[in-house]
Amino acid sequence: MIKYSPGDEVRFRLARKELTGTILESYDPRVVLLKLDSGYNIGIPLDKILDSKILKKFKEVEISDEDFVSRKKGLKKIGLVVTGGTIASKLDVKTGGVKPLTKLKEFANFYPKLFDMVDVKKIEIPFMMASENMSSEHWIKIAKSVEKLLNDKEIEGVIVTHGTDTLHYTSAALSFFLKDLNKPVVLTYSQRSIDRASSDADLNLICAAKMALSNVAEVMLVGHASTNDDFCFALKGTKTRKMHTSRRDSFKTINDIPIAKVWPEKIEFLREYNLRNNKRKVNLDVNFSDKVSLIKYYPGQKANILDFLSEKCKGIIIEATGLGHFASSESKNNWIPKIKKLIKKGVIICAVPQTLYGGLNPNVYSSGRELKECGIIFLKDMLPETAFIKLGWVLGHRNWKGKEKEKMLNNFSGELSELLTE
Amino acid sequence: MIKYSPGDEVRFRLARKELTGTILESYDPRVVLLKLDSGYNIGIPLDKILDSKILKKFKEVEISDEDFVSRKKGLKKIGLVVTGGTIASKLDVKTGGVKPLTKLKEFANFYPKLFDMVDVKKIEIPFMMASENMSSEHWIKIAKSVEKLLNDKEIEGVIVTHGTDTLHYTSAALSFFLKDLNKPVVLTYSQRSIDRASSDADLNLICAAKMALSNVAEVMLVGHASTNDDFCFALKGTKTRKMHTSRRDSFKTINDIPIAKVWPEKIEFLREYNLRNNKRKVNLDVNFSDKVSLIKYYPGQKANILDFLSEKCKGIIIEATGLGHFASSESKNNWIPKIKKLIKKGVIICAVPQTLYGGLNPNVYSSGRELKECGIIFLKDMLPETAFIKLGWVLGHRNWKGKEKEKMLNNFSGELSELLTE
Repeated sequence: MIKYSPGDEVRFRLARKELTGTILESYDPRVVLLKLDSGYNIGIPLDKILDSKILKKFKEVEISDEDFVSRKKGLKKIGLVVTGGTIASKLDVKTGGVKPLTKLKEFANFYPKLFDMVDVKKIEIPFMMASENMSSEHWIKIAKSVEKLLNDKEIEGVIVTHGTDTLHYTSAALSFFLKDLNKPVVLTYSQRSIDRASSDADLNLICAAKMALSNVAEVMLVGHASTNDDFCFALKGTKTRKMHTSRRDSFKTINDIPIAKVWPEKIEFLREYNLRNNKRKVNLDVNFSDKVSLIKYYPGQKANILDFLSEKCKGIIIEATGLGHFASSESKNNWIPKIKKLIKKGVIICAVPQTLYGGLNPNVYSSGRELKECGIIFLKDMLPETAFIKLGWVLGHRNWKGKEKEKMLNNFSGELSELLTE
Repeated sequence: MIKYSPGDEVRFRLARKELTGTILESYDPRVVLLKLDSGYNIGIPLDKILDSKILKKFKEVEISDEDFVSRKKGLKKIGLVVTGGTIASKLDVKTGGVKPLTKLKEFANFYPKLFDMVDVKKIEIPFMMASENMSSEHWIKIAKSVEKLLNDKEIEGVIVTHGTDTLHYTSAALSFFLKDLNKPVVLTYSQRSIDRASSDADLNLICAAKMALSNVAEVMLVGHASTNDDFCFALKGTKTRKMHTSRRDSFKTINDIPIAKVWPEKIEFLREYNLRNNKRKVNLDVNFSDKVSLIKYYPGQKANILDFLSEKCKGIIIEATGLGHFASSESKNNWIPKIKKLIKKGVIICAVPQTLYGGLNPNVYSSGRELKECGIIFLKDMLPETAFIKLGWVLGHRNWKGKEKEKMLNNFSGELSELLTE
């Protein structure tokens, strides 16, 4: 039997099949732990392995002693904001999971193609964090880092690398926080860490760089368009949602179309966009109130959840069913009296579609008409996550007091589609 | 100018375009209200209408004086459960919305094609209600009606007509409530009421009847496969979700494939299914605890929502981000201590993917591993709505106390996909 170590890529022959994957550390000497190419980890009793072959010995990536960013002269300049997530992680052979890159050097060494393509003039690392652990303070920190880079005259555009879990919340936040946007702001990610054969990081980063040099002054999310490793989509920051736990093309545009298809060497535009204006300065508008919450209505739900939420919150987003419904006067759980009371008290209550796709229309059914009469703001086809961010941002502006409905229905950053057809 | 009345289908010529639609009642004599074929209502100032033509005069559907169900001899027999919703509604020319059919006679008169195709032996109307207003008592009533019909030896299968808003909750409930299913149970719906040109009701009902006569002993949802009015899908009751507010093909199979394509004259099967067994009796298992709740985690959310929910609930479903994450020890909003406390107190906490597509895997990232160690039950690729129903059903069984995890991960009715690949 051949000797293999954690991190090695191997092929095992078992009685009925062959398996290829990466060896993980195992605490039981009688069992080999293998990370399959599909991403799943399995344990194989040693005596079931009839034959084995090492496909590639594991080698720690060498860290050069040069300046961590190997800047090349003559290339166009971009700014980079690194915030953590899988794109800044590597396989942990102890757990079969991933662990964060701790040094920026490692980042540069993992992604040489990016640094061959553009001159990364400045790198900001406001924090390193898995995105599920972020909150508004992190969105504000990212916005401040991005603003600084965008207002550097030499920088053509900014790439933000970020975990995938809540990337669409951050992209919505940046869409509202960065006013009078002058240059491209491109969020990107990876679903598979770079040391895995199926990693999506390289293509995503290169396409992100392509968009960062483009004329599109929008907050965009760039990532795999399909499970093929061939091209990416550039998606609008306010109309995008993570729609799969693990696929490389998890991010989908909802109720909209992508801004562009992006290849490493070309861009094909699919819709209109705001034009770059390098002479303009971007302005920060990071007023944000954390006194907002988001709930999804389900049948049988009691209205007292609204009492709990409104103790701390000035605004509530409710994911409604169908065209904009929740329990109305026909139901024993009738939400109408409580909603009326809270709106009278000044709580802003908005409805969004829990179907995600399509727009609300409270005029068709009696439940909708009753709820509309209560003063609920129906946010058409706005995504729940985008609506949550937007309501926090609107409520963060004290001078907009009394104008919340007008502001929520004002299309600041493409969060409402102009026309929805079947 | 031609004289038209509410309900008439008309064509108007304006300065720049032509519009066709249905006249609605208007309280302003200077404005004509028109329901466009797209479903939108618009007001047109009278003086903007250059020319108009009546395409079809409105006529109240005549109600025959015969027995309300015109049963035809020699056809196969089915049972029908009518519960309300758009499929049992008609256009209300006063509001431009829809109003429920109040008499069963009307239902039969609206859908003559169904009654030409099958012999509807028995009709049950447990209640008439918009589905957003339902709760567990209604799922139980429907299950009891269905059981009665299924155990009638002459009846080949049962059709349940239902509103769309929460149809996928009801289909999940019936999937768990009806044990040892002997015959087809087919839920169907319409997104556009039958008196609209674009109604989907006729095709859905006829395809539902086709499936009700088939050999498939499953709880299924039958409806438009695309926006074309050509064929339907039969979808599994536990793997289906309403994914659009208004399209006729709103219901989508998530993490699974449809059971079949259904045309009025044929069925094309796409996967395996449980076979009909007319000799078996179906058994009701409607034990259900309402002490469950469903929340969606969002970044920045405080863990005290769990305290509020657990005051009344024995079980909580959390829609987690990514592969099964919410705020962990890295976050200032760390949910871990509260979750540990509640699980110790006996609260059952389960995680499902808020991406909807894909499955959870808590082993990849440190947040996931921390949460797994707390005792959270990760429900793989189960839909949030299905998980909510299933947890209520599991907690409704007192004799399953202590076995909640085993039961939640036991695949009772196809709620977990056997294999998920990219």
